[in-house]
Amino acid sequence: MINTMISIAIDAMGGDFGPDPIVNGVIDALKTKEFHAVLVGDIQKIKPLIPDNYKKFITFVESTEVFSMGESATNVLKRKDSSIFKAIELVKNGECKAVVSAGHSGATMSLATLRIGRLKSVARPAIATLMPTSIGKKTLVLDVGANVDCKAEHLFQFAVMGEAYSKQIMKIQNPKVGLLSNGEEDCKGNEVTKDAFLMMSKLDSFVGNVEGHQIFDGSVDVIICDGFVGNILLKTSEGVANAIKKIIKENVKKSPFALLGAVLMKGIFKNLKTQIDYDEYGGAPLLGVKECVIISHGKSSPKAVKNAIFQALKFAGSDINKTIEDELSHFAR
Amino acid sequence: MINTMISIAIDAMGGDFGPDPIVNGVIDALKTKEFHAVLVGDIQKIKPLIPDNYKKFITFVESTEVFSMGESATNVLKRKDSSIFKAIELVKNGECKAVVSAGHSGATMSLATLRIGRLKSVARPAIATLMPTSIGKKTLVLDVGANVDCKAEHLFQFAVMGEAYSKQIMKIQNPKVGLLSNGEEDCKGNEVTKDAFLMMSKLDSFVGNVEGHQIFDGSVDVIICDGFVGNILLKTSEGVANAIKKIIKENVKKSPFALLGAVLMKGIFKNLKTQIDYDEYGGAPLLGVKECVIISHGKSSPKAVKNAIFQALKFAGSDINKTIEDELSHFAR
Repeated sequence: MINTMISIAIDAMGGDFGPDPIVNGVIDALKTKEFHAVLVGDIQKIKPLIPDNYKKFITFVESTEVFSMGESATNVLKRKDSSIFKAIELVKNGECKAVVSAGHSGATMSLATLRIGRLKSVARPAIATLMPTSIGKKTLVLDVGANVDCKAEHLFQFAVMGEAYSKQIMKIQNPKVGLLSNGEEDCKGNEVTKDAFLMMSKLDSFVGNVEGHQIFDGSVDVIICDGFVGNILLKTSEGVANAIKKIIKENVKKSPFALLGAVLMKGIFKNLKTQIDYDEYGGAPLLGVKECVIISHGKSSPKAVKNAIFQALKFAGSDINKTIEDELSHFAR
Repeated sequence: MINTMISIAIDAMGGDFGPDPIVNGVIDALKTKEFHAVLVGDIQKIKPLIPDNYKKFITFVESTEVFSMGESATNVLKRKDSSIFKAIELVKNGECKAVVSAGHSGATMSLATLRIGRLKSVARPAIATLMPTSIGKKTLVLDVGANVDCKAEHLFQFAVMGEAYSKQIMKIQNPKVGLLSNGEEDCKGNEVTKDAFLMMSKLDSFVGNVEGHQIFDGSVDVIICDGFVGNILLKTSEGVANAIKKIIKENVKKSPFALLGAVLMKGIFKNLKTQIDYDEYGGAPLLGVKECVIISHGKSSPKAVKNAIFQALKFAGSDINKTIEDELSHFAR
């Protein structure tokens, strides 16, 4: 039976909290969808975590070495026995259709690029992430960390990849793709984004420059930036949300009325958490490599791992990589 | 009496809502502090807004022309009769020690740079803004919009100016200055920030790279970035805060318990608004020009205008510009 299912390689060891949340996420995913999970890690530690009735969906690949978060990504090619290296090899060798890793994201990215390889015409793979909006839908933002110094053509390629992802994975028929800039007007931007603006104008989906607040208002579907800006906007957003939470919490402590109010509003705050918590979105796809690579946060909860696996299943069952290659070769002509 | 007071030029016309909030802000400021307000604008419209007992602190300069928000900043030199041009000239001619403008910020900046002039050794003036944190204190961030493409030496100069502002105006004895980057580690950054990191290392106040969330946690006092990134982080922050507000509001509507809770928490939300509302901080000083120029938001409330005037009074009564010149010439040696 396993042979007819999509196989997903999962680095069971690389996360900040060891194999527990990862294995639990895999089990939770299996409760909803059938797939073949290939868990890479210390079998002695992982196997006991799996209930008997799920064992038929899981195979194991032994790896007792973990590529730790403190190591430099550049060393990962030498660490052939690490769980992340072996998980990536399963995809490279065609044994799995996708890999999910909550381990060292730089190492995952390097291995994906160097061992699995880039798509034809893609100069730089990019990490894409889903951001919450006030209207329920999500905004795809890329790049959020893979490439700190980008040229205009890299941003253009990100736009093509983001457009393909929103169409094929998010199922948005006519996505709106915006270029993050310091103003909506066409004339705004720095040297690189001004050039990128001109190149992106060839795309039907391109709606022009967008501003930072548009990430959260749902006015566009895909937002393009370089990895330096992408990292800063992710962390800035987290910082604002945390600061608001902290201010509310500390003020509530000072007043019994407010405390009662907060209790009555508990459901709302929980809802809010679900809507804005980045962990809820699972993982970030690395777009532009030949197979499906989903990078999850090191602190991923079982729910995040489960959602990352769902993303991987959707990706692996789609034609997105062919679309990206076709589009880019169309524009290269 | 007026002769012994600090004179502040105020563009009474340039804001989005006309002279009313600006004049009201001036009156509110005069309730707390004595200064000489020089209101530039349509005297017929402004004069009736002023209560008799404040008239002795105010003089008027006639200007019926407004440089509108829709105009290109590059045209402002030709608009010698506009209120913003005349307000800047009052500072240039030495009649006033500072100018506060809620008008076209690009035009204000251009005029300040071209008519008042840059400080010795400053290549690019920068707009600095105060951001709220979860621990009550504020973080100074610059540049937030004046310079989209920056070289490392520009960022270094921003650091020197930010350090001086935090010491002399914010009265922080040993400020911590951080460089906004895509990670805390020294090796992180793009090409420009990596070079800027090395240059900033000469400053005692420099604490290294900081991440986006540190804007809001109060861990540093000054954060340096280019104007492209600065604009994006300002608008991203606003976007997150607005999205959270909107999500809470819409969910509250659906539940009578939550609605009651929200009523009980009203004071907290008001507090939060005060703590995170950018308008409460008054204006953004343009650092690196020879006099004091405070740029306020076009939608400034009277409170924002009042606070902008307080900032101008502090600035005009300080030695900050001399400190900036001395520091920069020290490092140029």
